[in-house]
Amino acid sequence: MKDKKDLIPRKAVYRLSLYNRCLEHMADKNGATVSSEALAKIAGVKPTQLRKDLAYCGPIGKRGLGYDITALRQRLTETLGTTRLQPVVLIGAGNLGSALLQYEEGFAKEGFEITAAFDLHPKKRASRKGVPILPMAQLAKFIAVRGIKMAILCVPGFTAQEVCNLLVASGIQAILNFSPILLQIPPGVAVNNVNLAMELENLSYFIQ
Amino acid sequence: MKDKKDLIPRKAVYRLSLYNRCLEHMADKNGATVSSEALAKIAGVKPTQLRKDLAYCGPIGKRGLGYDITALRQRLTETLGTTRLQPVVLIGAGNLGSALLQYEEGFAKEGFEITAAFDLHPKKRASRKGVPILPMAQLAKFIAVRGIKMAILCVPGFTAQEVCNLLVASGIQAILNFSPILLQIPPGVAVNNVNLAMELENLSYFIQ
Repeated sequence: MKDKKDLIPRKAVYRLSLYNRCLEHMADKNGATVSSEALAKIAGVKPTQLRKDLAYCGPIGKRGLGYDITALRQRLTETLGTTRLQPVVLIGAGNLGSALLQYEEGFAKEGFEITAAFDLHPKKRASRKGVPILPMAQLAKFIAVRGIKMAILCVPGFTAQEVCNLLVASGIQAILNFSPILLQIPPGVAVNNVNLAMELENLSYFIQ
Repeated sequence: MKDKKDLIPRKAVYRLSLYNRCLEHMADKNGATVSSEALAKIAGVKPTQLRKDLAYCGPIGKRGLGYDITALRQRLTETLGTTRLQPVVLIGAGNLGSALLQYEEGFAKEGFEITAAFDLHPKKRASRKGVPILPMAQLAKFIAVRGIKMAILCVPGFTAQEVCNLLVASGIQAILNFSPILLQIPPGVAVNNVNLAMELENLSYFIQ
Protein backbone atom coordinates (compact mmCIF):
# COMPACT_ATOMS: atom_id res chain seq x y z
CA MET A 1 0.00 0.00 0.00
CA LYS A 2 1.24 3.48 -0.80
CA ASP A 3 1.99 6.04 1.88
CA LYS A 4 -1.16 7.98 2.47
CA LYS A 5 0.57 11.32 1.89
CA ASP A 6 1.54 10.27 -1.66
CA LEU A 7 -1.95 9.19 -2.64
CA ILE A 8 -4.00 10.85 -5.34
CA PRO A 9 -7.51 11.55 -3.93
CA ARG A 10 -9.92 8.70 -4.64
CA LYS A 11 -12.32 10.77 -6.75
CA ALA A 12 -9.43 12.04 -8.88
CA VAL A 13 -8.36 8.41 -9.46
CA TYR A 14 -11.88 7.68 -10.75
CA ARG A 15 -11.64 10.61 -13.13
CA LEU A 16 -8.21 9.49 -14.38
CA SER A 17 -9.84 6.13 -15.20
CA LEU A 18 -12.61 7.98 -16.97
CA TYR A 19 -10.18 10.07 -19.07
CA ASN A 20 -8.31 6.91 -20.01
CA ARG A 21 -11.54 5.34 -21.21
CA CYS A 22 -12.51 8.44 -23.20
CA LEU A 23 -9.10 8.34 -24.91
CA GLU A 24 -9.54 4.67 -25.92
CA HIS A 25 -11.96 5.68 -28.63
CA MET A 26 -9.67 8.36 -30.04
CA ALA A 27 -6.37 6.53 -30.17
CA ASP A 28 -6.60 5.23 -33.72
CA LYS A 29 -4.27 7.72 -35.37
CA ASN A 30 -0.53 7.96 -34.74
CA GLY A 31 0.64 11.29 -33.34
CA ALA A 32 -2.90 12.56 -32.90
CA THR A 33 -3.49 15.11 -30.14
CA VAL A 34 -6.46 16.24 -28.10
CA SER A 35 -7.01 19.58 -26.36
CA SER A 36 -7.88 19.67 -22.66
CA GLU A 37 -11.13 21.42 -23.62
CA ALA A 38 -12.16 18.63 -26.01
CA LEU A 39 -11.24 15.82 -23.61
CA ALA A 40 -12.96 17.57 -20.68
CA LYS A 41 -16.14 17.94 -22.71
CA ILE A 42 -16.25 14.23 -23.59
CA ALA A 43 -15.56 13.27 -19.97
CA GLY A 44 -18.21 15.67 -18.68
CA VAL A 45 -15.87 17.70 -16.44
CA LYS A 46 -14.55 21.27 -16.52
CA PRO A 47 -11.22 21.86 -18.33
CA THR A 48 -9.70 23.25 -15.08
CA GLN A 49 -10.66 20.03 -13.29
CA LEU A 50 -9.10 17.93 -16.05
CA ARG A 51 -5.83 19.87 -15.99
CA LYS A 52 -5.68 19.63 -12.19
CA ASP A 53 -6.28 15.86 -12.30
CA LEU A 54 -3.68 15.27 -15.04
CA ALA A 55 -1.11 17.22 -12.99
CA TYR A 56 -1.14 14.26 -10.54
CA CYS A 57 0.47 12.21 -13.33
CA GLY A 58 3.47 14.56 -13.59
CA PRO A 59 4.27 17.09 -16.33
CA ILE A 60 2.62 16.17 -19.63
CA GLY A 61 1.49 18.09 -22.71
CA LYS A 62 2.62 21.47 -24.02
CA ARG A 63 0.62 24.64 -23.63
CA GLY A 64 -1.28 25.35 -26.83
CA LEU A 65 -0.42 22.02 -28.46
CA GLY A 66 -2.79 19.71 -26.59
CA TYR A 67 -1.96 16.21 -25.39
CA ASP A 68 -0.42 13.46 -27.51
CA ILE A 69 -3.13 10.79 -27.16
CA THR A 70 -0.83 7.77 -27.12
CA ALA A 71 1.57 9.32 -24.60
CA LEU A 72 -1.27 10.46 -22.33
CA ARG A 73 -2.86 7.01 -22.33
CA GLN A 74 0.45 5.43 -21.41
CA ARG A 75 1.00 7.91 -18.58
CA LEU A 76 -2.52 7.33 -17.21
CA THR A 77 -2.12 3.55 -17.38
CA GLU A 78 1.22 3.76 -15.54
CA THR A 79 -0.27 6.02 -12.88
CA LEU A 80 -3.27 3.76 -12.38
CA GLY A 81 -1.02 0.72 -12.16
CA THR A 82 -2.87 -1.37 -14.70
CA THR A 83 0.07 -1.97 -17.04
CA ARG A 84 0.48 -5.50 -15.70
CA LEU A 85 -2.22 -8.15 -15.24
CA GLN A 86 -3.43 -7.87 -11.63
CA PRO A 87 -4.39 -11.19 -10.00
CA VAL A 88 -7.71 -11.22 -8.12
CA VAL A 89 -9.62 -13.82 -6.08
CA LEU A 90 -13.41 -14.03 -6.06
CA ILE A 91 -15.17 -15.17 -2.88
CA GLY A 92 -18.65 -16.68 -3.07
CA ALA A 93 -19.58 -18.50 -6.28
CA GLY A 94 -23.37 -18.24 -5.86
CA ASN A 95 -25.74 -16.42 -8.23
CA LEU A 96 -23.82 -13.18 -8.56
CA GLY A 97 -20.32 -14.61 -8.10
CA SER A 98 -20.93 -17.14 -10.84
CA ALA A 99 -22.32 -14.38 -13.10
CA LEU A 100 -19.12 -12.38 -12.52
CA LEU A 101 -16.98 -15.43 -13.33
CA GLN A 102 -18.90 -15.55 -16.59
CA TYR A 103 -17.70 -11.95 -17.15
CA GLU A 104 -14.08 -13.05 -16.70
CA GLU A 105 -13.18 -11.89 -20.24
CA GLY A 106 -14.39 -8.41 -19.41
CA PHE A 107 -12.16 -8.23 -16.34
CA ALA A 108 -9.19 -9.62 -18.28
CA LYS A 109 -9.62 -6.95 -20.94
CA GLU A 110 -9.32 -4.31 -18.19
CA GLY A 111 -6.16 -5.86 -16.72
CA PHE A 112 -7.56 -8.13 -14.01
CA GLU A 113 -7.25 -11.89 -13.86
CA ILE A 114 -9.55 -13.91 -11.61
CA THR A 115 -7.07 -16.60 -10.54
CA ALA A 116 -9.50 -18.62 -8.41
CA ALA A 117 -12.93 -18.53 -6.80
CA PHE A 118 -13.57 -19.72 -3.25
CA ASP A 119 -16.81 -21.06 -1.85
CA LEU A 120 -18.09 -22.87 1.25
CA HIS A 121 -19.48 -25.61 -1.02
CA PRO A 122 -17.11 -25.70 -4.01
CA LYS A 123 -18.43 -29.03 -5.25
CA LYS A 124 -21.93 -27.59 -5.67
CA ARG A 125 -20.68 -24.80 -7.95
CA ALA A 126 -19.98 -25.13 -11.64
CA SER A 127 -16.55 -23.87 -12.65
CA ARG A 128 -16.74 -21.19 -15.36
CA LYS A 129 -14.24 -20.07 -17.96
CA GLY A 130 -11.71 -22.47 -16.47
CA VAL A 131 -11.44 -20.61 -13.12
CA PRO A 132 -11.04 -23.22 -10.34
CA ILE A 133 -13.53 -23.12 -7.44
CA LEU A 134 -11.71 -23.99 -4.22
CA PRO A 135 -12.82 -24.56 -0.61
CA MET A 136 -12.64 -21.61 1.82
CA ALA A 137 -10.09 -23.52 3.92
CA GLN A 138 -7.50 -22.98 1.16
CA LEU A 139 -8.10 -19.22 0.86
CA ALA A 140 -5.52 -17.81 3.30
CA LYS A 141 -2.66 -19.94 1.98
CA PHE A 142 -3.57 -19.27 -1.68
CA ILE A 143 -3.51 -15.49 -1.12
CA ALA A 144 -0.23 -15.61 0.80
CA VAL A 145 1.62 -17.89 -1.63
CA ARG A 146 0.57 -15.93 -4.72
CA GLY A 147 0.88 -12.50 -3.08
CA ILE A 148 -2.63 -11.56 -4.14
CA LYS A 149 -3.75 -8.11 -2.97
CA MET A 150 -7.27 -7.79 -4.35
CA ALA A 151 -10.53 -9.66 -3.79
CA ILE A 152 -14.06 -9.55 -5.22
CA LEU A 153 -16.53 -10.30 -2.42
CA CYS A 154 -19.87 -11.87 -3.42
CA VAL A 155 -20.95 -13.70 -0.26
CA PRO A 156 -24.34 -13.17 1.48
CA GLY A 157 -24.53 -10.14 3.80
CA PHE A 158 -24.70 -12.14 7.03
CA THR A 159 -21.25 -13.70 6.46
CA ALA A 160 -19.54 -10.87 4.58
CA GLN A 161 -17.84 -9.24 7.60
CA GLU A 162 -16.38 -12.57 8.74
CA VAL A 163 -14.99 -13.32 5.27
CA CYS A 164 -13.71 -9.73 5.01
CA ASN A 165 -11.78 -10.18 8.27
CA LEU A 166 -10.22 -13.36 6.89
CA LEU A 167 -9.25 -11.59 3.65
CA VAL A 168 -7.62 -8.70 5.52
CA ALA A 169 -5.78 -11.08 7.87
CA SER A 170 -4.50 -12.95 4.79
CA GLY A 171 -3.00 -9.81 3.26
CA ILE A 172 -5.74 -8.50 0.96
CA GLN A 173 -5.49 -4.71 0.58
CA ALA A 174 -8.41 -3.93 -1.71
CA ILE A 175 -11.92 -5.36 -1.85
CA LEU A 176 -14.60 -4.88 -4.49
CA ASN A 177 -17.65 -5.54 -2.31
CA PHE A 178 -20.87 -6.83 -3.89
CA SER A 179 -22.28 -8.01 -0.53
CA PRO A 180 -25.13 -5.81 0.68
CA ILE A 181 -23.45 -4.55 3.88
CA LEU A 182 -20.99 -1.82 4.82
CA LEU A 183 -17.75 -3.60 5.75
CA GLN A 184 -15.73 -2.52 8.79
CA ILE A 185 -12.11 -2.41 7.68
CA PRO A 186 -8.81 -1.35 9.26
CA PRO A 187 -6.87 1.66 7.88
CA GLY A 188 -4.75 0.68 4.88
CA VAL A 189 -7.46 -1.42 3.24
CA ALA A 190 -9.60 0.05 0.44
CA VAL A 191 -13.19 -1.04 -0.23
CA ASN A 192 -15.40 -0.06 -3.17
CA ASN A 193 -19.05 -1.08 -2.91
CA VAL A 194 -21.26 -2.18 -5.79
CA ASN A 195 -24.83 -3.00 -4.84
CA LEU A 196 -26.83 -3.83 -7.95
CA ALA A 197 -30.09 -4.34 -6.09
CA MET A 198 -29.78 -0.98 -4.32
CA GLU A 199 -29.00 0.79 -7.60
CA LEU A 200 -32.14 -0.72 -9.11
CA GLU A 201 -34.22 0.09 -6.03
CA ASN A 202 -32.96 3.67 -6.15
CA LEU A 203 -34.04 4.02 -9.80
CA SER A 204 -37.32 2.31 -9.04
CA TYR A 205 -38.21 5.08 -6.58
CA PHE A 206 -37.78 7.74 -9.23
CA ILE A 207 -40.23 6.16 -11.69
CA GLN A 208 -43.12 5.39 -9.37
CA MET B 1 -42.16 10.29 -12.99
CA LYS B 2 -42.90 12.12 -9.76
CA ASP B 3 -43.00 15.90 -9.50
CA LYS B 4 -39.51 17.03 -8.68
CA LYS B 5 -40.70 19.00 -5.63
CA ASP B 6 -42.09 15.83 -4.03
CA LEU B 7 -38.91 13.80 -4.49
CA ILE B 8 -36.83 12.48 -1.62
CA PRO B 9 -33.16 13.41 -2.28
CA ARG B 10 -31.33 10.66 -4.15
CA LYS B 11 -28.80 9.98 -1.37
CA ALA B 12 -31.59 9.66 1.18
CA VAL B 13 -33.29 7.10 -1.10
CA TYR B 14 -30.04 5.08 -1.06
CA ARG B 15 -29.99 5.19 2.73
CA LEU B 16 -33.66 4.11 2.94
CA SER B 17 -32.67 1.08 0.82
CA LEU B 18 -29.79 0.45 3.19
CA TYR B 19 -32.01 0.61 6.31
CA ASN B 20 -34.46 -1.79 4.68
CA ARG B 21 -31.61 -4.26 4.04
CA CYS B 22 -30.33 -3.92 7.62
CA LEU B 23 -33.82 -4.70 8.91
CA GLU B 24 -34.10 -7.87 6.79
CA HIS B 25 -31.77 -9.67 9.15
CA MET B 26 -33.73 -8.63 12.25
CA ALA B 27 -37.27 -9.33 11.19
CA ASP B 28 -37.55 -12.85 12.58
CA LYS B 29 -39.62 -12.09 15.67
CA ASN B 30 -43.20 -10.83 15.69
CA GLY B 31 -43.66 -7.43 17.35
CA ALA B 32 -39.91 -6.92 17.76
CA THR B 33 -38.67 -3.33 17.84
CA VAL B 34 -35.38 -1.59 17.13
CA SER B 35 -34.15 1.76 18.47
CA SER B 36 -32.97 4.44 16.05
CA GLU B 37 -29.54 4.29 17.77
CA ALA B 38 -29.20 0.52 17.15
CA LEU B 39 -30.38 0.70 13.52
CA ALA B 40 -28.16 3.72 12.81
CA LYS B 41 -25.14 1.88 14.18
CA ILE B 42 -25.72 -1.16 11.95
CA ALA B 43 -26.25 1.05 8.91
CA GLY B 44 -23.15 3.10 9.69
CA VAL B 45 -24.93 6.48 9.91
CA LYS B 46 -25.65 8.93 12.74
CA PRO B 47 -28.98 8.51 14.61
CA THR B 48 -29.97 12.08 13.67
CA GLN B 49 -29.41 11.23 9.99
CA LEU B 50 -31.51 8.07 10.33
CA ARG B 51 -34.41 9.91 11.98
CA LYS B 52 -34.30 12.66 9.34
CA ASP B 53 -34.34 10.06 6.53
CA LEU B 54 -37.20 8.06 8.04
CA ALA B 55 -39.24 11.27 8.37
CA TYR B 56 -39.49 11.24 4.55
CA CYS B 57 -41.65 8.11 4.94
CA GLY B 58 -44.23 9.92 7.10
CA PRO B 59 -44.85 9.61 10.86
CA ILE B 60 -43.62 6.27 12.18
CA GLY B 61 -42.44 4.98 15.58
CA LYS B 62 -43.17 6.33 19.05
CA ARG B 63 -40.65 8.32 21.07
CA GLY B 64 -38.91 6.05 23.54
CA LEU B 65 -40.43 2.85 22.16
CA GLY B 66 -38.30 2.37 19.04
CA TYR B 67 -39.60 1.20 15.66
CA ASP B 68 -41.72 -1.88 15.09
CA ILE B 69 -39.49 -3.79 12.67
CA THR B 70 -42.24 -5.30 10.52
CA ALA B 71 -44.12 -2.00 10.21
CA LEU B 72 -40.96 -0.06 9.40
CA ARG B 73 -39.96 -2.54 6.68
CA GLN B 74 -43.40 -2.28 5.12
CA ARG B 75 -43.29 1.52 5.18
CA LEU B 76 -39.83 1.57 3.59
CA THR B 77 -40.86 -0.88 0.88
CA GLU B 78 -43.96 1.19 0.08
CA THR B 79 -41.91 4.39 -0.06
CA LEU B 80 -39.29 2.82 -2.31
CA GLY B 81 -41.99 1.41 -4.59
CA THR B 82 -40.71 -2.14 -4.64
CA THR B 83 -43.89 -3.78 -3.37
CA ARG B 84 -44.75 -4.96 -6.88
CA LEU B 85 -42.49 -6.75 -9.38
CA GLN B 86 -40.96 -4.07 -11.60
CA PRO B 87 -40.45 -5.13 -15.24
CA VAL B 88 -37.03 -4.30 -16.74
CA VAL B 89 -35.45 -4.74 -20.18
CA LEU B 90 -31.75 -5.48 -20.64
CA ILE B 91 -29.96 -4.12 -23.71
CA GLY B 92 -26.79 -5.81 -24.98
CA ALA B 93 -26.43 -9.52 -24.32
CA GLY B 94 -22.64 -9.70 -24.68
CA ASN B 95 -20.19 -10.71 -21.92
CA LEU B 96 -21.57 -8.57 -19.13
CA GLY B 97 -25.20 -8.57 -20.25
CA SER B 98 -25.23 -12.31 -20.40
CA ALA B 99 -23.60 -12.50 -16.95
CA LEU B 100 -26.35 -10.26 -15.59
CA LEU B 101 -29.03 -12.44 -17.19
CA GLN B 102 -27.42 -15.29 -15.29
CA TYR B 103 -28.05 -13.22 -12.12
CA GLU B 104 -31.77 -12.99 -12.99
CA GLU B 105 -32.74 -14.77 -9.73
CA GLY B 106 -30.91 -12.12 -7.73
CA PHE B 107 -32.83 -9.32 -9.45
CA ALA B 108 -36.13 -11.18 -9.02
CA LYS B 109 -35.48 -11.55 -5.29
CA GLU B 110 -35.13 -7.76 -5.07
CA GLY B 111 -38.36 -7.10 -6.96
CA PHE B 112 -37.14 -6.74 -10.54
CA GLU B 113 -38.06 -8.95 -13.46
CA ILE B 114 -35.96 -8.94 -16.61
CA THR B 115 -38.75 -9.42 -19.15
CA ALA B 116 -36.53 -9.52 -22.24
CA ALA B 117 -33.02 -8.84 -23.50
CA PHE B 118 -32.30 -7.03 -26.77
CA ASP B 119 -29.24 -7.37 -28.94
CA LEU B 120 -28.03 -6.39 -32.42
CA HIS B 121 -27.32 -10.07 -33.10
CA PRO B 122 -29.88 -11.99 -31.04
CA LYS B 123 -29.23 -15.26 -32.86
CA LYS B 124 -25.59 -15.27 -31.77
CA ARG B 125 -26.53 -15.00 -28.08
CA ALA B 126 -27.58 -17.88 -25.87
CA SER B 127 -30.81 -17.24 -23.97
CA ARG B 128 -30.38 -17.61 -20.21
CA LYS B 129 -32.85 -18.44 -17.48
CA GLY B 130 -35.63 -18.41 -20.05
CA VAL B 131 -35.31 -14.67 -20.82
CA PRO B 132 -35.93 -14.17 -24.56
CA ILE B 133 -33.24 -12.33 -26.59
CA LEU B 134 -34.92 -10.17 -29.21
CA PRO B 135 -33.66 -7.99 -32.09
CA MET B 136 -33.16 -4.26 -31.43
CA ALA B 137 -35.81 -3.49 -34.05
CA GLN B 138 -38.48 -4.79 -31.64
CA LEU B 139 -37.28 -2.72 -28.67
CA ALA B 140 -39.40 0.44 -29.01
CA LYS B 141 -42.66 -1.43 -29.54
CA PHE B 142 -41.95 -3.90 -26.71
CA ILE B 143 -41.34 -1.05 -24.23
CA ALA B 144 -44.43 0.88 -25.33
CA VAL B 145 -46.82 -2.10 -25.31
CA ARG B 146 -45.70 -3.34 -21.89
CA GLY B 147 -45.33 0.12 -20.36
CA ILE B 148 -41.78 -0.65 -19.21
CA LYS B 149 -40.04 2.22 -17.46
CA MET B 150 -36.61 0.82 -16.59
CA ALA B 151 -33.68 -0.52 -18.62
CA ILE B 152 -30.31 -2.11 -17.86
CA LEU B 153 -27.79 -0.90 -20.45
CA CYS B 154 -24.82 -3.20 -21.22
CA VAL B 155 -23.85 -2.18 -24.75
CA PRO B 156 -20.29 -1.09 -25.74
CA GLY B 157 -19.42 2.54 -24.99
CA PHE B 158 -19.34 3.67 -28.62
CA THR B 159 -23.01 2.83 -29.18
CA ALA B 160 -24.39 3.50 -25.68
CA GLN B 161 -25.56 7.09 -26.30
CA GLU B 162 -27.45 6.06 -29.44
CA VAL B 163 -29.20 3.21 -27.62
CA CYS B 164 -29.90 5.52 -24.67
CA ASN B 165 -31.62 8.01 -27.01
CA LEU B 166 -33.78 5.20 -28.38
CA LEU B 167 -34.70 4.06 -24.85
CA VAL B 168 -35.67 7.57 -23.77
CA ALA B 169 -37.69 8.13 -26.96
CA SER B 170 -39.50 4.84 -26.26
CA GLY B 171 -40.58 5.93 -22.78
CA ILE B 172 -37.84 4.59 -20.48
CA GLN B 173 -37.50 6.78 -17.36
CA ALA B 174 -34.67 5.05 -15.50
CA ILE B 175 -31.45 3.45 -16.75
CA LEU B 176 -28.94 1.32 -14.87
CA ASN B 177 -25.90 2.03 -17.04
CA PHE B 178 -23.06 -0.51 -17.20
CA SER B 179 -21.62 1.03 -20.39
CA PRO B 180 -18.37 2.88 -19.76
CA ILE B 181 -19.57 6.36 -20.76
CA LEU B 182 -21.47 9.21 -19.13
CA LEU B 183 -24.86 9.32 -20.84
CA GLN B 184 -26.43 12.63 -21.87
CA ILE B 185 -30.06 12.47 -20.78
CA PRO B 186 -33.00 14.89 -20.79
CA PRO B 187 -34.52 16.10 -17.47
CA GLY B 188 -36.99 13.57 -16.06
CA VAL B 189 -34.81 10.53 -16.79
CA ALA B 190 -32.68 9.02 -14.02
CA VAL B 191 -29.38 7.22 -14.66
CA ASN B 192 -27.27 5.25 -12.17
CA ASN B 193 -23.83 4.19 -13.37
CA VAL B 194 -22.07 0.95 -12.48
CA ASN B 195 -18.63 0.56 -13.99
CA LEU B 196 -17.03 -2.64 -12.73
CA ALA B 197 -13.76 -2.10 -14.59
CA MET B 198 -13.39 1.42 -13.19
CA GLU B 199 -14.11 0.20 -9.64
CA LEU B 200 -11.37 -2.41 -10.04
CA GLU B 201 -8.97 0.09 -11.60
CA ASN B 202 -9.62 2.48 -8.73
CA LEU B 203 -8.77 -0.20 -6.15
CA SER B 204 -5.78 -1.27 -8.19
CA TYR B 205 -4.26 2.20 -7.78
CA PHE B 206 -4.42 1.96 -4.01
CA ILE B 207 -2.47 -1.32 -3.79
CA GLN B 208 0.41 -0.54 -6.12
